[in-house]
Amino acid sequence: MSTEVPAELADLRRSIDNIDAAIIHMLAERFRCTQQVGVLKARQNLAPADPAREESQIARLRALAHEAGLDPVFAEKFLGFVIAEVIHHHERIASATTSPPAGPGVG
Amino acid sequence: MSTEVPAELADLRRSIDNIDAAIIHMLAERFRCTQQVGVLKARQNLAPADPAREESQIARLRALAHEAGLDPVFAEKFLGFVIAEVIHHHERIASATTSPPAGPGVG
Repeated sequence: MSTEVPAELADLRRSIDNIDAAIIHMLAERFRCTQQVGVLKARQNLAPADPAREESQIARLRALAHEAGLDPVFAEKFLGFVIAEVIHHHERIASATTSPPAGPGVG
Repeated sequence: MSTEVPAELADLRRSIDNIDAAIIHMLAERFRCTQQVGVLKARQNLAPADPAREESQIARLRALAHEAGLDPVFAEKFLGFVIAEVIHHHERIASATTSPPAGPGVG
């Protein structure tokens, strides 16, 4: 399928593959945590989304990204992407557990 | 802003924050690698996108996700999200360096 790949490119791709494996495992662990958060929120009838928490997460990750040389705009988009999935999970957990969650909706 | 947060929730959030910091740094390093890939591709007039490479990355990350207990569909979406950004970068590098890249377009 792929034509010859220059050695330098193949080498960089090996690093990228290692990094991706690390990120996948980090994401798996992150969802294990947010799964617990979801159960906790459903049990205590807390809203799946938490705008104040999200705001502070965004600010923190943008600052971390800036320090690490990553585009803060991308870091924010990334967090939004992950949080959208988390809220999805929380809604599923909430609807499977108890009554509909209190507080502001997710929109 | 946020009302009282249960201790258990605050504890989980500390883990999530640590994981996010790790992911941000992994992403920063990943983009350092893909930046080099972009320069290499522009220099050698290779296409920014590489469908065969992407296909094998997707298959690999889906398998890793499955093993790690992460939704493979989400893993694939995540990779697509990151690759879209990378191709963006490569196009910028290519247009800033030499003639337009050869091979199939990015679409």
